[in-house]
Amino acid sequence: MALKVRRENNDMEAPLLSNDSFVVDLRRASANTTSQIAIVGAEVCPIESLDYELVENDLFKQDWRSRSRAHIFQYIVLKWAFCFLVGALAGGTGFLTNLAVENVAGIKFVVTSNMMLAGRYEWAFGVFTASNFVLTMFAAGITVFFAPEAAGSGIPEVKAYLNGVDAPGIFSFRTLVVKVVGTIAAASSSLHVGKAGPLVHTGSCIASILGQGGSRKHHLTWKWLGGYCKNDRDRRDLVTCGAGAGMAAAFRAPVGGVLFALEAVSSWWRISLLWRSFFTTAVVAVVLRALIDVCKSDKCGLFGKGGLIMYDVTSENTAYRFSDLLPVIVLGVVGGILGSLYNFLLIKILRIYTLINKRGRLCKLLLAAIISICTSCCLFGLPWLAACKPCPADAAEACPSIGRSGNFKKYQCAPGHYNDLASLFFNTNDDTIKNLYRAGTDNVFQPSTIIIFFVASYFLGIFSYGIAAPTGLFVPVILTGATYGRLIGMLMGSYSSLDLGLFAVLGSASLLGGSMRITVSVCVILLELTNNLLLLPLVMLVLLISKTVADVFNANIYDMLVNLKGFPYLEPHAEPYMRQLTVADVLTGPLQFFNGVEKVGNIVHVLRTTGHNGFPVVDEPPFSDSPVLYGLILRAHLIVLLKKKEFLHSRVHSGFDMLKQFCADDFAKRGSMVNQELVEDLILSEEEMEMYIDLHPFTNTSPYTVVETMSLAKALILFREVGLRHLLVIPKSTTRGPVVGILTRHDFMPEHILGLHPFLLTKRWWRLRLWKYDILELFQGVK
Amino acid sequence: MALKVRRENNDMEAPLLSNDSFVVDLRRASANTTSQIAIVGAEVCPIESLDYELVENDLFKQDWRSRSRAHIFQYIVLKWAFCFLVGALAGGTGFLTNLAVENVAGIKFVVTSNMMLAGRYEWAFGVFTASNFVLTMFAAGITVFFAPEAAGSGIPEVKAYLNGVDAPGIFSFRTLVVKVVGTIAAASSSLHVGKAGPLVHTGSCIASILGQGGSRKHHLTWKWLGGYCKNDRDRRDLVTCGAGAGMAAAFRAPVGGVLFALEAVSSWWRISLLWRSFFTTAVVAVVLRALIDVCKSDKCGLFGKGGLIMYDVTSENTAYRFSDLLPVIVLGVVGGILGSLYNFLLIKILRIYTLINKRGRLCKLLLAAIISICTSCCLFGLPWLAACKPCPADAAEACPSIGRSGNFKKYQCAPGHYNDLASLFFNTNDDTIKNLYRAGTDNVFQPSTIIIFFVASYFLGIFSYGIAAPTGLFVPVILTGATYGRLIGMLMGSYSSLDLGLFAVLGSASLLGGSMRITVSVCVILLELTNNLLLLPLVMLVLLISKTVADVFNANIYDMLVNLKGFPYLEPHAEPYMRQLTVADVLTGPLQFFNGVEKVGNIVHVLRTTGHNGFPVVDEPPFSDSPVLYGLILRAHLIVLLKKKEFLHSRVHSGFDMLKQFCADDFAKRGSMVNQELVEDLILSEEEMEMYIDLHPFTNTSPYTVVETMSLAKALILFREVGLRHLLVIPKSTTRGPVVGILTRHDFMPEHILGLHPFLLTKRWWRLRLWKYDILELFQGVK
Repeated sequence: MALKVRRENNDMEAPLLSNDSFVVDLRRASANTTSQIAIVGAEVCPIESLDYELVENDLFKQDWRSRSRAHIFQYIVLKWAFCFLVGALAGGTGFLTNLAVENVAGIKFVVTSNMMLAGRYEWAFGVFTASNFVLTMFAAGITVFFAPEAAGSGIPEVKAYLNGVDAPGIFSFRTLVVKVVGTIAAASSSLHVGKAGPLVHTGSCIASILGQGGSRKHHLTWKWLGGYCKNDRDRRDLVTCGAGAGMAAAFRAPVGGVLFALEAVSSWWRISLLWRSFFTTAVVAVVLRALIDVCKSDKCGLFGKGGLIMYDVTSENTAYRFSDLLPVIVLGVVGGILGSLYNFLLIKILRIYTLINKRGRLCKLLLAAIISICTSCCLFGLPWLAACKPCPADAAEACPSIGRSGNFKKYQCAPGHYNDLASLFFNTNDDTIKNLYRAGTDNVFQPSTIIIFFVASYFLGIFSYGIAAPTGLFVPVILTGATYGRLIGMLMGSYSSLDLGLFAVLGSASLLGGSMRITVSVCVILLELTNNLLLLPLVMLVLLISKTVADVFNANIYDMLVNLKGFPYLEPHAEPYMRQLTVADVLTGPLQFFNGVEKVGNIVHVLRTTGHNGFPVVDEPPFSDSPVLYGLILRAHLIVLLKKKEFLHSRVHSGFDMLKQFCADDFAKRGSMVNQELVEDLILSEEEMEMYIDLHPFTNTSPYTVVETMSLAKALILFREVGLRHLLVIPKSTTRGPVVGILTRHDFMPEHILGLHPFLLTKRWWRLRLWKYDILELFQGVK
Repeated sequence: MALKVRRENNDMEAPLLSNDSFVVDLRRASANTTSQIAIVGAEVCPIESLDYELVENDLFKQDWRSRSRAHIFQYIVLKWAFCFLVGALAGGTGFLTNLAVENVAGIKFVVTSNMMLAGRYEWAFGVFTASNFVLTMFAAGITVFFAPEAAGSGIPEVKAYLNGVDAPGIFSFRTLVVKVVGTIAAASSSLHVGKAGPLVHTGSCIASILGQGGSRKHHLTWKWLGGYCKNDRDRRDLVTCGAGAGMAAAFRAPVGGVLFALEAVSSWWRISLLWRSFFTTAVVAVVLRALIDVCKSDKCGLFGKGGLIMYDVTSENTAYRFSDLLPVIVLGVVGGILGSLYNFLLIKILRIYTLINKRGRLCKLLLAAIISICTSCCLFGLPWLAACKPCPADAAEACPSIGRSGNFKKYQCAPGHYNDLASLFFNTNDDTIKNLYRAGTDNVFQPSTIIIFFVASYFLGIFSYGIAAPTGLFVPVILTGATYGRLIGMLMGSYSSLDLGLFAVLGSASLLGGSMRITVSVCVILLELTNNLLLLPLVMLVLLISKTVADVFNANIYDMLVNLKGFPYLEPHAEPYMRQLTVADVLTGPLQFFNGVEKVGNIVHVLRTTGHNGFPVVDEPPFSDSPVLYGLILRAHLIVLLKKKEFLHSRVHSGFDMLKQFCADDFAKRGSMVNQELVEDLILSEEEMEMYIDLHPFTNTSPYTVVETMSLAKALILFREVGLRHLLVIPKSTTRGPVVGILTRHDFMPEHILGLHPFLLTKRWWRLRLWKYDILELFQGVK
């Protein structure tokens, strides 16, 4: 009878995919649907939730009991071996990326510089622009045609994945290849983009592919690797390690990498994971060190003291006085304002780019082409504005420099002179940062040079990020920050005794703090980058001030990107207005549930007509005196059962015989949703549809539950802290059946809740944006 | 009727305090009682759980709605002001401690050294032993008589507090004063103990006292401070910041302090806390810097380049080759073995000491006296074993040195010679570490010297920790590790090109990793201590190896101490055998519950006869059709209600009038349980006992619940992750009333569960100790 009622409600179901008008304001449009969509990379995809809950059914319990010591040993060995492999591969990829960028960009600069030295400026411009154009279009082309998921930095996608959002393709083998190759091309093409974000994505990608035992699609599977990751939780842990390893490889900062994964990317963390990701980044450090040693004897082309090497800012004068606190405070405030403005502008531009990108592949390529040509014009044209400076008498390197390695670019200047703006523009980003950080170079750059470069760098960074190619945010932000850091140092004049190189480092810290709002990890990364521990208190202070100032205006850039892309990201806190609601207030749609022994036809019908991924299993008479909740069964498990066709002829308990037909491996979740079986692929005869399945042995008998009068805020804390996909709602009074609904991630999304209860929008809770986290703590909206 | 049944079961209640035979094997004896006891410091105390759950009742909801902007502003200002104050005070205390130790110990060494130089060896021995004895007895005396809670390092107590265990007195003003003064005396008395652990306790203490608005007992309360911490969660956050600040102050390592709090001390963490504790340690760093600057012009007596200053190990030869990996691996393995042995021996000794200490104050003092005299004899006597070495021609400082500052102690040697063993023994621990870390001192120490010092240091550390005085573990471990690090470096001879000073640093890392098993924070602390980033990969490797090796044998020292002291520490994982049980299997004792409108007499009776801290509130007819669970009410709130005497004459709803009689502040939990009201203090007339209270407006209507068939493992994950004190168990079938029991922290303790189900002990799950965490991950016993 219960079933009958449900069936009638089926047409009330929301469509699985909503209409086309969502792209710009995706989140509002997609609320209340069971299957969600989001912008992944530069493309729109359906997304699913990940399931970290421990399924406790008879089958798995039997399996756990039967685990042998050999199996436990295999698991432990594989777990650490995977971490080792992730570290080694991420380190190798990071090194390879740097090596390739240094060589490709290096050759480009050598050729054009030589032309400039020979006075053939038009040719130099042509070659420079053309090579940049070709490299950019190559990066954009492979991204657009082979793996749109590889566009952008990838950190928002990784962050969403680690929050439990499964977007297909973000960790595929194809994405990995395109990301690596595309990053090399994009970073070599003098675009104002970085490699750090893409390397984080690459590291996560490597981890995920290893974790699912290779890429099935490309027949790159290894059976013996399959013994490890059989659930989303193990994979999440490995991807967390991979993200840390990627950051460690990008900046050669092993401790910083771990902290970045902890602070900026992961949603769940525990101490044993700290320990495992620390191992992974230690491997990265050792691998990088070994590879750099190999390159020491000039075997690696133009890869020399360029990328990946620390920006050594050790200067004798690292003592600072208390009067130096003023410029530090100024830097922090400026960094906070510029950082939040950066975020604001970047999101505005990305909204426009999304409109352009959704018009098709050609538009994406066109956009990339325009950005590339504009960037080339900027980089080549702006240095002409700068006045030539005479070479300093005590220059440590050749002035003007020849080839790419030197930093006193002659450009259009007369012999014995150099163009300081070209030293910044006409270089790889890594070399430019090194120039800005270098100590004892207080007189190398003119203020006007720094101003021009700052403005160009600020806006080029904003305009370049959104093109359909792998692009990172870290390096542009570091670069821009270093510029105004130096500028403020110049303005301070003799007031501060600090070196301008130190000002540049502090400037970078301030913009990182203002834009990304990560503190401890940026602090450690900068220390590891610059090898100068005495800077620590100043860096901490700058970060604290810039983050505080920027938090007044908007959120951190990654949260804004996750939001813009429409990922249903589960915040670690409850909004104050959720206190006003009970879970019953947000339950929508008819509840679909199954009997303990259910008709095959009913199961197939429900699976085909809904997008739900979990169904309560209820025992009704004669199996129990009154309807009682037996547990929760997953869609994926039902499909395995239906495929195996172990059906019963009548509505009876099967006993433990059923268990013998299955092994736990049949139910293992191996990878992303693309690998999952679909109900549409099932072929069942008319006769089979009339038979029964005993769901008891396969039902998770320990689902988490809340009573319907539970406040939504506290239910969210439970949902988020334990890391659930489904949360069953049971009635308060016993007369309304054993279960009244299921809460999923989407039911906790502010858009969904405010859609159901628009009056909440007018309450003043909602308007409090300033100091949001502090207020949330006051109202105890956090755990 | 339900009440009647309960009353009859009262004599089944366990006694509130169990008998006297618990001290050594406290945990087993105390299982199943409602109020628990544990060893806090060196004394046995009753303990309670902390309550982090958000109480959602009508009163608080009304209060939240009425919060003004001014109030929100006050909260935010206070929150950050408290962090600032904690940082400033912790930094100041850390500096003061160091200043005092350097001066007290310094004068002692100057006097005795001068006597030695004059050849009056017996006098020197007498003065040295006597001053050590007096200092030790002073430290032990004030600890024993005024604040037994101040004994030991305090880190286990802080760790237990942050896990939700409230032991009275650990954060009192008295404890703070005794801890600071006692640490100064103990560290100056040449005992082999450190200052870091006590400083962590001090930092937490400062945070907690500020958090409850001062010390009520000592009339040091500030009204305007009271606006902040009104619940255990805010206090927990502040104490976490305080613990980090303490560590930061101990080693002048701000980032290391934050990570230590995260990795080793806290049980719950979130990103906004990272950010706040980072602010706190930044304040510590600035305060320390300012105070050290003040001391630069010799205003601070003997405080000079001693304690608190970084052990600068920068040497030119920081490049390492791959062949250096072998000694690093050897160091890691040795560190792992020695570290786990250290833990094992320490716990054994502590068990014996506990037996001695429980015999009374005199025994405690006697033990401290014996340890002090033995230590003095060791320190003064052992250097006579060493052969005198001629002074090196190129010594950077006077040799033999005069006064305390020099490190080439003349001791009994002829002029122009020095005693290298005395340079280690006859110094403050900080100076000894500096000697061992110093680069370019490969020939200063003989191997026999290092061996003697290693053995003495290893065992003195083990024997000194357990006395009834503030004692830290960090410095002895660092010191011992540095010794055998140097020794292994010597044994490597010409195989390794690393400096012996670097070997000493790596040795310290290996013993820290082997004993405390903290990785990332030790890594960062060592980097901040030694100011040498190039060491990073080697330190990481050593830590990883030593922790892995040591984990094979036993747990980390803090967990072992928490366990030994009998704190009901809630692990972040579920044991595999908990999978076999449902929550119903561990429910014990009769359930006490109240009606929505309850008789005053019943409430008083239940409160007086049980130790429970939370009671379900059930609405029975006529307030509802059938008995339904309304929520959970806390003992503390009931006592507030009873004191206010707003009683009803009949069993009716009071409506919202009741709310007007109370404000939310009446129910605020301000501090540790010593400040709470007791039910014994209530005076109620016979007539009042017959009246009724409407509990509805004060009942938390959103308690977390689990169904009785929920597996214990998953209930534990919920309990621990959300940070609960009470978890209501509701029945599966609707015929058994609305609630069947309450789970608390003690119901999840392995001793309790295995006491109820001894057969589980024979299952093989329980025997798996090796690689425990990996196995737990395989069985998904972690979140």
